[in-house]
Amino acid sequence: MEMQIDKLIGVLRQKNNPTVLGLDTRFSYLPEKFAKQYAAQSEAVFAFNAVLLKELREIIAAVKIQAAYYELLGTDGIVCMQKTAQLAAELGYSVILDVKRGDIGATAAAYSGAYLAKDAPFAADFLTVNPYLGSDGILPFVEDAQKTGRGIFVLVKTSNPSSGEFQDILVENPSGEKEPFFALVGKKVEKWGKFCIGVEGYSSVGAVVGATWSEQIVYLRKKMPHTFFLLPGYGTQGASGKDLVGAFDDKGSGAAVAASRSLICAHLKKGTEDFAAAACDAALAMRSDLRRSLEKK
Amino acid sequence: MEMQIDKLIGVLRQKNNPTVLGLDTRFSYLPEKFAKQYAAQSEAVFAFNAVLLKELREIIAAVKIQAAYYELLGTDGIVCMQKTAQLAAELGYSVILDVKRGDIGATAAAYSGAYLAKDAPFAADFLTVNPYLGSDGILPFVEDAQKTGRGIFVLVKTSNPSSGEFQDILVENPSGEKEPFFALVGKKVEKWGKFCIGVEGYSSVGAVVGATWSEQIVYLRKKMPHTFFLLPGYGTQGASGKDLVGAFDDKGSGAAVAASRSLICAHLKKGTEDFAAAACDAALAMRSDLRRSLEKK
Repeated sequence: MEMQIDKLIGVLRQKNNPTVLGLDTRFSYLPEKFAKQYAAQSEAVFAFNAVLLKELREIIAAVKIQAAYYELLGTDGIVCMQKTAQLAAELGYSVILDVKRGDIGATAAAYSGAYLAKDAPFAADFLTVNPYLGSDGILPFVEDAQKTGRGIFVLVKTSNPSSGEFQDILVENPSGEKEPFFALVGKKVEKWGKFCIGVEGYSSVGAVVGATWSEQIVYLRKKMPHTFFLLPGYGTQGASGKDLVGAFDDKGSGAAVAASRSLICAHLKKGTEDFAAAACDAALAMRSDLRRSLEKK
Repeated sequence: MEMQIDKLIGVLRQKNNPTVLGLDTRFSYLPEKFAKQYAAQSEAVFAFNAVLLKELREIIAAVKIQAAYYELLGTDGIVCMQKTAQLAAELGYSVILDVKRGDIGATAAAYSGAYLAKDAPFAADFLTVNPYLGSDGILPFVEDAQKTGRGIFVLVKTSNPSSGEFQDILVENPSGEKEPFFALVGKKVEKWGKFCIGVEGYSSVGAVVGATWSEQIVYLRKKMPHTFFLLPGYGTQGASGKDLVGAFDDKGSGAAVAASRSLICAHLKKGTEDFAAAACDAALAMRSDLRRSLEKK
């Protein structure tokens, strides 16, 4: 059985680009002329996603689809999310569904059945999950990950400005030292992944760590040697290559960098209708920035 | 504008029953003969929910629909969830969608658009949300709650066995005292609800507190005088009336008690196909237990 974490690392290496395309597609981002061609918002969003997926596939190897923007369009939007994920998989992308689910054991098992299990209706290579409920809420996903080779990314230190409100609170660890709360979560993540480490040295249980927090990235990388990091927050949220190099290992692996608005809304900043060309330019610039930062490391 | 938190308190009082019917409906719970009548699992689940909603409406005033079990059935399941919520609303129930969403600000705004905003495709009276991302992830919901009168329940102390793993970690509060992590979250919840307190004295920002944790319930009730508590964990998860009376105020208000498997799976325990009669019996027994416990208070 191929482990998706190994496949993800392989495709990122092949493209020599750790970028993850974030399809957080709001209908209002679409150029007016383009959007007008479609009868429904969900159809227009799918068409927009399809163009980006096709145009960017030489540059980018992985995609993260943010469920909220599809749920916003109702059941048609959810069909659109499903179709986007299927198309991305067909085009060879590694597919992360960013749903941040988390619940008690019995319910987490149902979510895992929906997204990670063998015949999951919304099957994806990876799923994002929330750790607030502790092991009960995570282990059902880990069990399915072990069966299918799929994986999860657990929120550890999120990219948003107020993430510190709870995540940075200092707590005493068992050795009596003070550590931020997110570090305890991080160490659990490392533990949850202990029995599903792939040939590349990383487990099927990854961590979401905001690209916006360079010091915390370095701190967590040391504590979590077998955990692959998904780093959102590049671009519009403020992070650049130099902020996040600490997440990578000496072989330039160990992390992927998600960017959404800075790619899919590049045409708005440029004032053009040609969103595909604008996204390609932005993706190439991002790739250069990341490569440069990784070389300097 | 009517606030849904006032309406919820009113309908619970009218029925003299703080029970919330949890529709965590797995297809496998359905009696075989009943399920066989329907071409698709999602149709059978909707029909099962519809019978329960109609039969229980004289006894129970609120319903909580757990999204995971519907997502498990794919897009048809999501249509089933939507139809269940609509039918429940038509029958006069207060409707809580248990989706436990939580994300960065821009994405939380999209989720709020999907569930809480004026023309939300999956509109519900209340939504459950996860606090891990801090204020950024909560305030978009609070803003929509203020506009529409709808509300949220924020996870504070969850009902599951491993909830203590992160939630019970002791942290130092600003006065230098040690408090469990969930208490800090609880105090934030009280603060987030400060500007949307209804005529009954409770805010549109409620808290999820596991009915399984009687001491923590008492502790939180003192710290959160304007926060309505949604208490899951009654029945199958182990809690009974005496465990949770501390959540209620002197008028017998301030909390609602969710039970799912102990009601919707009552027929399995009884060994009967008549799930509606079994659920009614279980609901009446639960109501008696809760009334007795509240009278003794």
